[in-house]
Amino acid sequence: DFLSALEEVKPLFGAAEEELGKRLLGGIINYSTFIDDILEEGRLYTNQVRKPGSTPILSVALHGPPGSGKTALAAKMAIDSGFPFIKFVSPEDMVGFSEMQKVQQLDKIFRDAYKSTLSVIVIDNIEMLFDWVPIGPRFSTSVLVALKVLLEKQPPKDRRLLIFATTTERSVLTQLDLFHRFDAEIAVPNVNTQAELAHILQHSGAFADRDLQRAIGEIQEITGSAEVGVGIKKILTGIETAKQDQDMPGRFARVMSHAIAVNKA
Amino acid sequence: DFLSALEEVKPLFGAAEEELGKRLLGGIINYSTFIDDILEEGRLYTNQVRKPGSTPILSVALHGPPGSGKTALAAKMAIDSGFPFIKFVSPEDMVGFSEMQKVQQLDKIFRDAYKSTLSVIVIDNIEMLFDWVPIGPRFSTSVLVALKVLLEKQPPKDRRLLIFATTTERSVLTQLDLFHRFDAEIAVPNVNTQAELAHILQHSGAFADRDLQRAIGEIQEITGSAEVGVGIKKILTGIETAKQDQDMPGRFARVMSHAIAVNKA
Amino acid sequence: DFLSALEEVKPLFGAAEEELGKRLLGGIINYSTFIDDILEEGRLYTNQVRKPGSTPILSVALHGPPGSGKTALAAKMAIDSGFPFIKFVSPEDMVGFSEMQKVQQLDKIFRDAYKSTLSVIVIDNIEMLFDWVPIGPRFSTSVLVALKVLLEKQPPKDRRLLIFATTTERSVLTQLDLFHRFDAEIAVPNVNTQAELAHILQHSGAFADRDLQRAIGEIQEITGSAEVGVGIKKILTGIETAKQDQDMPGRFARVMSHAIAVNKA
Amino acid sequence: DFLSALEEVKPLFGAAEEELGKRLLGGIINYSTFIDDILEEGRLYTNQVRKPGSTPILSVALHGPPGSGKTALAAKMAIDSGFPFIKFVSPEDMVGFSEMQKVQQLDKIFRDAYKSTLSVIVIDNIEMLFDWVPIGPRFSTSVLVALKVLLEKQPPKDRRLLIFATTTERSVLTQLDLFHRFDAEIAVPNVNTQAELAHILQHSGAFADRDLQRAIGEIQEITGSAEVGVGIKKILTGIETAKQDQDMPGRFARVMSHAIAVNKA
Amino acid sequence: DFLSALEEVKPLFGAAEEELGKRLLGGIINYSTFIDDILEEGRLYTNQVRKPGSTPILSVALHGPPGSGKTALAAKMAIDSGFPFIKFVSPEDMVGFSEMQKVQQLDKIFRDAYKSTLSVIVIDNIEMLFDWVPIGPRFSTSVLVALKVLLEKQPPKDRRLLIFATTTERSVLTQLDLFHRFDAEIAVPNVNTQAELAHILQHSGAFADRDLQRAIGEIQEITGSAEVGVGIKKILTGIETAKQDQDMPGRFARVMSHAIAVNKA
Amino acid sequence: DFLSALEEVKPLFGAAEEELGKRLLGGIINYSTFIDDILEEGRLYTNQVRKPGSTPILSVALHGPPGSGKTALAAKMAIDSGFPFIKFVSPEDMVGFSEMQKVQQLDKIFRDAYKSTLSVIVIDNIEMLFDWVPIGPRFSTSVLVALKVLLEKQPPKDRRLLIFATTTERSVLTQLDLFHRFDAEIAVPNVNTQAELAHILQHSGAFADRDLQRAIGEIQEITGSAEVGVGIKKILTGIETAKQDQDMPGRFARVMSHAIAVNKA
Ligand SMILES: Nc1ncnc2c1ncn2[C@@H]1O[C@H](COP(=O)(O)OP(=O)(O)OP(=O)(O)O)[C@@H](O)[C@H]1O
Ligand SMILES: Nc1ncnc2c1ncn2[C@@H]1O[C@H](COP(=O)(O)OP(=O)(O)OP(=O)(O)O)[C@@H](O)[C@H]1O
Ligand SMILES: Nc1ncnc2c1ncn2[C@@H]1O[C@H](COP(=O)(O)OP(=O)(O)OP(=O)(O)O)[C@@H](O)[C@H]1O
Ligand SMILES: Nc1ncnc2c1ncn2[C@@H]1O[C@H](COP(=O)(O)OP(=O)(O)OP(=O)(O)O)[C@@H](O)[C@H]1O
Ligand SMILES: Nc1ncnc2c1ncn2[C@@H]1O[C@H](COP(=O)(O)OP(=O)(O)OP(=O)(O)O)[C@@H](O)[C@H]1O
Ligand SMILES: Nc1ncnc2c1ncn2[C@@H]1O[C@H](COP(=O)(O)OP(=O)(O)OP(=O)(O)O)[C@@H](O)[C@H]1O
Ligand SMILES: [Mg+2]
Ligand SMILES: [Mg+2]
Ligand SMILES: [Mg+2]
Ligand SMILES: [Mg+2]
Ligand SMILES: [Mg+2]
Ligand SMILES: [Mg+2]
Repeated sequence: DFLSALEEVKPLFGAAEEELGKRLLGGIINYSTFIDDILEEGRLYTNQVRKPGSTPILSVALHGPPGSGKTALAAKMAIDSGFPFIKFVSPEDMVGFSEMQKVQQLDKIFRDAYKSTLSVIVIDNIEMLFDWVPIGPRFSTSVLVALKVLLEKQPPKDRRLLIFATTTERSVLTQLDLFHRFDAEIAVPNVNTQAELAHILQHSGAFADRDLQRAIGEIQEITGSAEVGVGIKKILTGIETAKQDQDMPGRFARVMSHAIAVNKA
Repeated sequence: DFLSALEEVKPLFGAAEEELGKRLLGGIINYSTFIDDILEEGRLYTNQVRKPGSTPILSVALHGPPGSGKTALAAKMAIDSGFPFIKFVSPEDMVGFSEMQKVQQLDKIFRDAYKSTLSVIVIDNIEMLFDWVPIGPRFSTSVLVALKVLLEKQPPKDRRLLIFATTTERSVLTQLDLFHRFDAEIAVPNVNTQAELAHILQHSGAFADRDLQRAIGEIQEITGSAEVGVGIKKILTGIETAKQDQDMPGRFARVMSHAIAVNKA
Repeated sequence: DFLSALEEVKPLFGAAEEELGKRLLGGIINYSTFIDDILEEGRLYTNQVRKPGSTPILSVALHGPPGSGKTALAAKMAIDSGFPFIKFVSPEDMVGFSEMQKVQQLDKIFRDAYKSTLSVIVIDNIEMLFDWVPIGPRFSTSVLVALKVLLEKQPPKDRRLLIFATTTERSVLTQLDLFHRFDAEIAVPNVNTQAELAHILQHSGAFADRDLQRAIGEIQEITGSAEVGVGIKKILTGIETAKQDQDMPGRFARVMSHAIAVNKA
Repeated sequence: DFLSALEEVKPLFGAAEEELGKRLLGGIINYSTFIDDILEEGRLYTNQVRKPGSTPILSVALHGPPGSGKTALAAKMAIDSGFPFIKFVSPEDMVGFSEMQKVQQLDKIFRDAYKSTLSVIVIDNIEMLFDWVPIGPRFSTSVLVALKVLLEKQPPKDRRLLIFATTTERSVLTQLDLFHRFDAEIAVPNVNTQAELAHILQHSGAFADRDLQRAIGEIQEITGSAEVGVGIKKILTGIETAKQDQDMPGRFARVMSHAIAVNKA
Repeated sequence: DFLSALEEVKPLFGAAEEELGKRLLGGIINYSTFIDDILEEGRLYTNQVRKPGSTPILSVALHGPPGSGKTALAAKMAIDSGFPFIKFVSPEDMVGFSEMQKVQQLDKIFRDAYKSTLSVIVIDNIEMLFDWVPIGPRFSTSVLVALKVLLEKQPPKDRRLLIFATTTERSVLTQLDLFHRFDAEIAVPNVNTQAELAHILQHSGAFADRDLQRAIGEIQEITGSAEVGVGIKKILTGIETAKQDQDMPGRFARVMSHAIAVNKA
Repeated sequence: DFLSALEEVKPLFGAAEEELGKRLLGGIINYSTFIDDILEEGRLYTNQVRKPGSTPILSVALHGPPGSGKTALAAKMAIDSGFPFIKFVSPEDMVGFSEMQKVQQLDKIFRDAYKSTLSVIVIDNIEMLFDWVPIGPRFSTSVLVALKVLLEKQPPKDRRLLIFATTTERSVLTQLDLFHRFDAEIAVPNVNTQAELAHILQHSGAFADRDLQRAIGEIQEITGSAEVGVGIKKILTGIETAKQDQDMPGRFARVMSHAIAVNKA
């Protein structure tokens, strides 16, 4: 009945808050105007679902290079929605599950969501959920097909659902006939300009102004380009590694240059 | 015996009505003359099956691009038939089923249908029922073979069955030797002209005349073409998204242009 | 013992008669001289098996395009044999069987046949029995191998067996090393000439002479050829569809032209 | 112990005699000198194994086109050996066996053979035993590997084993690294000359001399060649089919010409 | 509870010490300055993880040719960390495990690690853990996906984890989208110069100075190059083999030349 | 405990002696100086392992064409070692084993070996142990991976292990990344010169000098070359076959020429 359903939903939300918090440990640094634009897009879709009478299911794909901040941004949007049911679904929680168990778990999550009038589900790393491996290629057909179906399945009457999914593999999702099933997409870019990088370094408080300039200068020297092209996640880890080194700016420059080169390869 | 069989059939029909209703939430907007033509074709096949003495099984494939309205039209035809047994079969209802379970479920649905003198079965998204994935390609051989057989299996004496199936993958069905087993086919097109699009926008009541013209104009500007080429489903969702934006016509134009571009890619 | 064996055989025959009747609902229309030739061939092989002392197992493959009448002709030949044991084997009866269950069922059917001195087994749609799908290609190796073996297995002493198999896939059977195991083959052609088509239309009694000529004329106009090239099955269904239309000859012409075009594609 | 072992072996031999007899229903017609040569080769290998002190396991592959007489000749050689243990292994006896069951059955047969001092095992249609299908290609790895191992496995002390295997697929066996494991090979040819064919026809007693000449003449006319190129099995069946026809020589010529053409395709 | 958890962790560490010792039987010979550089890198990452407040999980890939010393160096770094929980994971310990059992074992090891505040896990031969075989190629998707997830999974609050993984297949890991998930990489080179080789030979104490020069000279003669290019592991085994031969330097030169040639092939 | 462990080891050794004897039925004929060289190499590796303090595990691959004597030579070396634990592992002993059972059996054999201070394991036909079939190619990944791991796994303290493996597929082992895991390799050649062949024939005592010359001469005539190129195993069997023939040298020449031709194909 309805009461016990509500009871079941509450703790799920509590658990999700902790889960979501873990994805936001690095905060959301406002290093470029497009960060605000992305969050504004999220509010738009949240409002659309909130409004009674409109389409009862809406799905949004956040895609971009590794470490660009997709998961953190999706977590932020989910929290900002204020919807009573929020669920964070991640491949981490399904290590060692059989294909069938994964499908059943996904099905259960959607059925749980339908117990609340307004729900958000974040599906993190969707391509890893169906075990995508580029060699072969290999993937779990049954999990993929379940995701396709669940993305388009009409909720029961008076239930409204918003789905955020993150992926580094937009083109794979397209080839698998999965991508066009999303109602909308949001592109999350790398940190690309030296100004953006400087903003982040300053925000970290780890570098003296002078060291900051030296680090950025050395990166340009090593990579031979003023374009940066690396995810914010690697930048934040790189700062920490550099802190262990006596020559902090030099080490930071080397670590970043290596990451940029690996990205390009 | 016959009475208990009838009892079993009744509730199935009830359930189907609700199922079918859910597929018709956006109604059937008469945005072009071919909508009437399609429904007329449906009536023709319904009449053929209804007539005693003619071929006791008839199958019709509705094919067309994503979101063009195949499911809604098939649901409408099924309801319009007035046949005592109507069943809507969808991949949604078989999430987490094994191949064998799917085959058994399909077999049961056909056997149920034979309990009524006149029956309609709608098989929605037939290619997803056999787990078609274009990479590989992959699909469930046993479900595919079961569908082939069931499509051509003669009903018992004095039982007459009409099958509507929907698909976005006509050529896949052809390659799999499934398509030619249908007795007839109905092509469901995209919304292709600006007049058709205008009809739908007007019907929605969301746009002032002036905004409507601006929206259509901007789409032509962005896409560089007067041809539209998008399913009615995306149009209806696009209107709702646009409503959240202060600049409704501008947002609608951007959303549609993106959808048209993705379709062409 | 022998008596109980006979008892087991009798009902099998009864069931077969009904099964075979269902395949002959459209009768055998004598629309060309080769229909008689084909039935004469059937009698020849029946006589060969009937004669004691000759080879105790004989297998005949009926092959031809979809809907050309293979199943009806094989059913006719089986009935005409007058053999005490007749069994009709069809993929329809094995929906949802595992590979192993299919093999066991086939094995049982052959063992049942050996309980009678003279037996006929009709294997309908043999390529679907081993789940042939052209993409891949895929097929059930174990069912295929079982069929190969059963086709060549010597019956016990004083037992004589005739096998008719139907297929649309002669070349597939050849590639799979199955075809050459048949002792003889019978080709079943499409309805190819306008005279043959006229014969069938007249036999149906549905068309006035004038309409008949108009229909055939329009087909030639649409297809741009005097050659017909379609199976009798599509013709019989097409007549029924046309009957629902006010413009019967016109609709018949359109339906046939479409079928002919699909065949050629 | 030894006595019970002997008891187990006896009935096996009895069964084998019946099995072997069934393969020799058409006799061994001496239609060419190479028939004697082949049987002489068989005696040579039998003697080699019989001689104490020599190599305790010897395997011989009989290969040739379909229906050329491989099975009959292997059966004849096995019978002529006079060895106390003879076993005929055929895919027929393993219909519906799993791979594992086949391997276990093969293993058992070899262990049974080792209970007798002198044994012959005939492995008929060896490529079908491991489910060889040319499309793919597919085959049972575990049965193949078991056969490889069993062909080379040293018998226990004072046990001597002779193996005859038949196959139409010498080149497949070579590619699978199976063929070179045989100690010797015997090629069994088609009936290739008109003289050989005439010998067989005369032996059948079905044709008057004049009809015989006419039949052979017509074959040459239809095929456009004096070379025959067909297995003796098809010839013997062809004679029987022809007997049902009023024009016996004509029908025989047509049936043979068709068989020859199919062989060449 | 916490106490019993600690108890579980202790013995694990004890066992690891023995495990790690076994990988260091040949010691760490300081044959080049880059050996120190590598160990210094290890200390840097250890310090980064040790520092509270920084990123709680850090993974480092040691890659290089076979036998170059990857495992020994990873073991050394793990011991040098002095972390209270150290676990050495090797394919050796999972012989005969099913894929599912491997995944569960890996999952357990990570959960065990989280019982300690500071932990090191060494994953040896990571590509063999997921059964990589270059022909096919083949690999265990489920183990690979589990490793991907575990490498990036955030530890619980106040838990910090350092991962060292060794591999000879850096490019394979890249193609499988596994490599970029490591936070850092360390390249372990072959012994490449004659000076390095001389250092190792001298350190072994097995060669008189004169023999040492002769051995190196002969290697250059046979291989036609002053470059060495072989892992330290083969060098240490080669010294032992050579000791058995009267002509120790000659034998050593032959063995090394062979190893170098095989490496190049 | 140690005593019961010893008890378990003893009978294993006894069984091995019989097993090894069976592989040496044809003796070791000293037909060329390289036979001594090969056995000398074996003694070298045996001594290396025997010496305490050196590397505790050593693996040697014997590779060469079919029938060249690999198994006999490996058996000889194992016996000559005089080590207290000797185990002969052959695909023969694992007919009908599942992959998992093979892996467990291999694991058990290695664990048994570690119960003795000094042990030899002979792995015969290693590529057949992991079910290598060149078409596909196919092989058992789990057995292959288990062999890779076991070949490199460090024995427990104070345990020393020598492994001889035989194979006809050196290049396959290389492609599978298995070959480079062996510490050493020994090439076993065919009988290649007429002098070598003459030595073997003389040793057999079956030929008069004159017949011997005639046989060798005829081989040269038939093959058109003075090079022989056949394994000693085929030569020994060929002598026995020839003995059955009245024209012994002629038959021997024909059998050998055929074997040489098959080898070259
Ligand atoms: N503006 C920002 N946008 C996103 N993340 C940010 C931003 N500022 C700081 N961060 C921090 O950067 C990190 C981004 O990592 P996150 O895991 O979200 O990236 P990702 O794109 O999901 O990576 P992956 O491709 O590995 O899944 C987080 O720790 C987040 O708190
Ligand atoms: N003339 C029309 N024809 C079809 N659908 C219409 C029409 N007018 C309005 N609609 C509405 O448009 C939507 C069409 O969506 P529907 O799911 O039927 O499309 P579809 O082609 O089946 O999509 P998919 O390819 O995703 O299966 C429905 O909500 C339907 O009510
Ligand atoms: N001369 C004829 N030969 C065969 N069938 C005929 C003939 N005249 C009428 N018919 C009718 O035509 C239909 C032929 O259909 P049938 O199922 O036998 O074709 P088919 O070739 O087996 O089709 P499919 O390729 O789908 O298996 C039957 O209803 C049969 O009664
Ligand atoms: N000289 C002969 N050699 C072989 N078979 C003969 C000979 N003379 C008559 N026969 C008869 O010819 C038939 C040969 O058929 P058999 O099954 O042995 O051929 P096969 O080559 O094994 O065929 P398949 O390729 O189908 O296995 C048998 O009935 C046999 O009795
Ligand atoms: N400087 C050194 N670096 C690494 N190993 C050394 C060094 N000096 C001596 N050794 C010894 O060399 C051997 C290196 O073998 P190790 O197993 O670590 O190599 P590996 O690269 O892991 O080999 P594999 O590719 O087979 O996994 C060890 O016995 C180690 O004790
Ligand atoms: N010098 C020799 N070297 C090896 N084998 C010899 C020699 N002299 C005689 N023999 C005999 O030759 C035979 C060689 O056969 P063996 O099975 O060892 O060959 P193989 O190379 O292992 O064959 P396969 O490739 O089939 O495994 C044995 O019977 C052995 O006793
Ligand atoms: Mg992420
Ligand atoms: Mg639809
Ligand atoms: Mg049919
Ligand atoms: Mg045969
Ligand atoms: Mg290592
Ligand atoms: Mg061998």
